[in-house]
Amino acid sequence: MDASAPSRPPLRQAFSEALATLLGARFSTAAAVCAHHGHDESHFPDALPDAVAWPHATDEVATIVRLCAEHAVPVIAFGAGSSLEGHILALRGGLSVDFSEMNKVLAVHAEDMDAVVQPGVTRKQLNAELHGTGLFFPIDPGADASLGGMAATRASGTNAVRYGTMRDNVLALEAVLADGRVIRTGSRARKSSAGYDLTRLLVGSEGTLALITELTLRLHPLPEAVSSAVCAFPDVDSAVRTVIQTIQLGVPVARIELLDSLTVQAINRYSKTSLREAPMLFFEFHGSPAGVEEQAQTVQELARDHGGQDFEWATRSEERSRLWQARHDTYFACLALRPGCRGVTTDVCVPISRLADCIAGARADIAASGLTAPIVGHVGDGNFHTLILVDPHDAEELARAETLNRRIVERALEMDGTCTGEHGIGFGKMDFLVAEHGGEAVAAMRSVKRALDPAGLLNPGKIVSER
Amino acid sequence: MDASAPSRPPLRQAFSEALATLLGARFSTAAAVCAHHGHDESHFPDALPDAVAWPHATDEVATIVRLCAEHAVPVIAFGAGSSLEGHILALRGGLSVDFSEMNKVLAVHAEDMDAVVQPGVTRKQLNAELHGTGLFFPIDPGADASLGGMAATRASGTNAVRYGTMRDNVLALEAVLADGRVIRTGSRARKSSAGYDLTRLLVGSEGTLALITELTLRLHPLPEAVSSAVCAFPDVDSAVRTVIQTIQLGVPVARIELLDSLTVQAINRYSKTSLREAPMLFFEFHGSPAGVEEQAQTVQELARDHGGQDFEWATRSEERSRLWQARHDTYFACLALRPGCRGVTTDVCVPISRLADCIAGARADIAASGLTAPIVGHVGDGNFHTLILVDPHDAEELARAETLNRRIVERALEMDGTCTGEHGIGFGKMDFLVAEHGGEAVAAMRSVKRALDPAGLLNPGKIVSER
Repeated sequence: MDASAPSRPPLRQAFSEALATLLGARFSTAAAVCAHHGHDESHFPDALPDAVAWPHATDEVATIVRLCAEHAVPVIAFGAGSSLEGHILALRGGLSVDFSEMNKVLAVHAEDMDAVVQPGVTRKQLNAELHGTGLFFPIDPGADASLGGMAATRASGTNAVRYGTMRDNVLALEAVLADGRVIRTGSRARKSSAGYDLTRLLVGSEGTLALITELTLRLHPLPEAVSSAVCAFPDVDSAVRTVIQTIQLGVPVARIELLDSLTVQAINRYSKTSLREAPMLFFEFHGSPAGVEEQAQTVQELARDHGGQDFEWATRSEERSRLWQARHDTYFACLALRPGCRGVTTDVCVPISRLADCIAGARADIAASGLTAPIVGHVGDGNFHTLILVDPHDAEELARAETLNRRIVERALEMDGTCTGEHGIGFGKMDFLVAEHGGEAVAAMRSVKRALDPAGLLNPGKIVSER
Repeated sequence: MDASAPSRPPLRQAFSEALATLLGARFSTAAAVCAHHGHDESHFPDALPDAVAWPHATDEVATIVRLCAEHAVPVIAFGAGSSLEGHILALRGGLSVDFSEMNKVLAVHAEDMDAVVQPGVTRKQLNAELHGTGLFFPIDPGADASLGGMAATRASGTNAVRYGTMRDNVLALEAVLADGRVIRTGSRARKSSAGYDLTRLLVGSEGTLALITELTLRLHPLPEAVSSAVCAFPDVDSAVRTVIQTIQLGVPVARIELLDSLTVQAINRYSKTSLREAPMLFFEFHGSPAGVEEQAQTVQELARDHGGQDFEWATRSEERSRLWQARHDTYFACLALRPGCRGVTTDVCVPISRLADCIAGARADIAASGLTAPIVGHVGDGNFHTLILVDPHDAEELARAETLNRRIVERALEMDGTCTGEHGIGFGKMDFLVAEHGGEAVAAMRSVKRALDPAGLLNPGKIVSER
């Protein structure tokens, strides 16, 4: 792994001058600015860009990308910097294009349940702007990520079991190709068979095929009734088996999240909650009042069959928000268990029937490794994370964490699962991509990459290697 | 439009001999066989392949495709021949690869709600084989199409409003690339962020990027309760406005289908039903008994507000099957209105708020055209068809039908919709693809096509033109 920027020529003066002329103060080569854009939330060493640009409009992005193409400068799209696999590391220097100032909600079509947004809009910002429309956008990675970044990594979160992932909730995109051409993919129609699905090709492409400059997103009606509950279990396995039966019965739960007892401890400390420190499921039910009642009753019976305690209900809206905010803060709560540490996060997802075995195996691996690694999961999808707490300066420990990560991924692949349910490949999982899809499929991905970015300037060193 | 095969060299003897050796009687150059594979259900003139192959396994498909690559022979994947835009026309001759003998259900993972099938399995066959598992596969184009063909055209049908389209229900594919390499895309995990979404790239690619040799499909639990009803309306507009409100309220209807009075007439004649010959909505509700009751009540109230008659319920399972079979036979029922005619089918899909205007506009266009064109629609998705009945030998009438089709598509595009909700581009809608996506996006599609099929041998002349 070589995340440090190799020696490289400085940006040509003509390039810098052209960008400064175009963007004024919205172009910077200041060291502090580059440092801020040289790392995400992963444990990988920083890799700094040579400069940062803050475009305000699609045509500016197109001009920037054209200039980069002319001068052979790598271009890295930067959203909120909350990615977990080194996605925004400038491995070969170049220009970080920070979308934080392209952050307008351009249109809300409440009657069609869609919205058109710029890529720098964050998920919380969008939901705040939807207030009063009776609609919401459900995809919620832990961080308050930008929607452009969420599309680029094919993100999901706690609601995916009911509402799908970014794959399912992006209707159309506008994007700038490697040579500066602007394309539009898709329309506001709910379905289409019109040609290759460029929308789905760009969702999850992590800035390696194009830069997303506008998104048309599916919105969902706010449910008439919502109820949330937590339920403690005697052990992780009982909790997971409750989940498996819930999904197999087709109960349309909106959220069903696993937290092991170490995670609950971390949350209690970090978020000042007083949850019972045992393996827990967090539930949320959406629907009509009767429908929610019915779902909750079914799941409560299943939980009881597996030794679950009585549900503790969060009935008021503020209680619910507090509960889910605590869930979303899990990443930072767990990091706080060991001050100064960084996280190596696993993100496997397996067919639901294999989930109990997969988690049991991971727990045994963690115990054998001697590392601290709380487990949380979007278990309704078969997806869970272990957050391995590492001292980033301890090479031996990092190596042990990598071995543990690899072992967990290998097991998931043996179970016909994926190495990443929602975090993406970035720089950190490129080897696993080959293990998962096979060399021929990755070669096909490489052909697509070369077709759309022949000079290899869009986020180089991510997803597929150059040869 | 030139659908007739241009003069072309005969297949080389070495090629034919190699295929005959590989496949024996499963390779044929017989005129009758080629004629059968030279047309689909569209009105386009026949375009015959030079030969037909019936592979039994993926490695045979790989060998076939490799031989075609060596000898520069076009390859056209053939499912059930039920496509509607000339998808399987052998515009440049070549080899039709008929998947009807690759028709095994390879695995049903009931506990994970997925199935692995060969591409020649039809939708009805799969559901028959799922009998007793408590699961079903919901995607139902009118014809009993092959699942490989349905994936290739990104098909949907009456259940899409609740269960999505083939885009949403294909978890993974195995496919043979243009040079004979075999790739696997995706896994059995419910979600993944692992690299470019090759699954979604191949779904809807109409045999132009690869030949699908295996599909992993999402299954769904059979609903605990099902109820179906029909409801007559004073006019089409009232019916459509009922649909719009139903969707905007977020009622999770499983099916909501519009039939204009001419279509109902056609069905009554063809399927010996005795439906009231007025604009109708066909509904189906899936859920728990209480949930179904609740949905039906809400929709019934909305219908009443728009002048709808009382619901007529199809309570017994046989009645329901009869009703939906009649709906699925609409295409043939309408063709039977005018013996000897062929259908030019429009397939636009628009944002739901525009649906009433879009259909009203289409009705005015039909009236002005002097043509006969019943209207049916998967209106919950914003998708409807007009089936323009034409004498395929009357050039003037065909031209008038094309003008009507174009006018309907143009209006849909103005409304930010798509030229095809579920039928695909094939040969018939290539111009509309450019009108919908713009030249730059289609150029990006062409780059992807060239990257994966540099010699242009996979279903040539479909989706994107070569330059």
